[in-house]
Amino acid sequence: MHTADRTERVPKQDRSRATRQRLLEAAVACLAERGWTGSTVSVVAEHAGVSRGAAQHHFPTREDLFTAAVEYVAEERSVALRALFPEGAAADDRRAVVAALVDLYTGPLFRAALHLWVAASNEEQLRGRVTELEARVGRETHRIAVDLLGADETRPGARETVQGLMDMARGLGLANLLTDDAGRRERVVEQWARLLDAALDGTPG
Amino acid sequence: MHTADRTERVPKQDRSRATRQRLLEAAVACLAERGWTGSTVSVVAEHAGVSRGAAQHHFPTREDLFTAAVEYVAEERSVALRALFPEGAAADDRRAVVAALVDLYTGPLFRAALHLWVAASNEEQLRGRVTELEARVGRETHRIAVDLLGADETRPGARETVQGLMDMARGLGLANLLTDDAGRRERVVEQWARLLDAALDGTPG
Repeated sequence: MHTADRTERVPKQDRSRATRQRLLEAAVACLAERGWTGSTVSVVAEHAGVSRGAAQHHFPTREDLFTAAVEYVAEERSVALRALFPEGAAADDRRAVVAALVDLYTGPLFRAALHLWVAASNEEQLRGRVTELEARVGRETHRIAVDLLGADETRPGARETVQGLMDMARGLGLANLLTDDAGRRERVVEQWARLLDAALDGTPG
Repeated sequence: MHTADRTERVPKQDRSRATRQRLLEAAVACLAERGWTGSTVSVVAEHAGVSRGAAQHHFPTREDLFTAAVEYVAEERSVALRALFPEGAAADDRRAVVAALVDLYTGPLFRAALHLWVAASNEEQLRGRVTELEARVGRETHRIAVDLLGADETRPGARETVQGLMDMARGLGLANLLTDDAGRRERVVEQWARLLDAALDGTPG
């Protein structure tokens, strides 16, 4: 490849990446605000200030766009979560870790993912894609939770303790869908962080 | 009122009640299978073998029908749950109680309620109704959980322990939406029933 070609291509790649990113962020915002029925590629393209043709170049189908969007934002949030605790977890940080894990499920990303899950439960085309996406994102989140909580998964029950905590986090996200549940959530987090201390550090059951 | 009037009215009331019940059950099934967008009064009326006019006589609006349906089935399930443990809870039954509480969120009722919640998060008309319904059903379920688990809510943290468990139950319901999660769920229930024993019977934290 000639040098001239390369210098011309780099900014084009950058522009393409920026367009893609704008589309993904607009897709999550749109899904969170309007739900699956109100979220089409056209609506997202307009939201992102991108032509419909350009949007379809990046994401040939609606399913491509929205599953990629939820995965992209989930990855961003994982990176942000790890950055909150750069040293990993110290035991006395556990309450902060539980609160941060629970926070993963109270924002627009969870709202968007929920719309996608619920739509997938009735739409065959979406179901396989979303199931696979959910498994991948779930595994990564579990891994982060184990690290940050300092859980030793070789101990009997430790894995299920962390899994149950993440199920609780998703349930707390659900409880926050229609009303601001922050007060109650804080008290539940405080109590379960205490129980978790006993469960993860105490003698095995 | 004349005796003749009364004898004529009783079976009419019975028929009316039976029609209402058929509509409510059909509404939950429809919501679970087709989601909010696919669930109209007409579809439910047809499903229930009732005329559209009769359906609208019982439930003037779509919101009336579906919120009443979710509440009706939730009450049925509460009654069934209490019937499972007629003596209340003994401590050694706790795992069975946790499993039964979690089971509340793995069937068509939870699927239907989830569709309603998610629709309500984007539809102003539905939001107030569903918020109020969710609060009422949630309080009743919490009360049953406290009873069956034998939790002493005067002890510090006991209330939040039970709340967190119910949040976990809803999260497990969510995890079961797209795939059969029964195996993992059973292991989480077993472990958390053990943690609950320590939390509810142990010394206060």
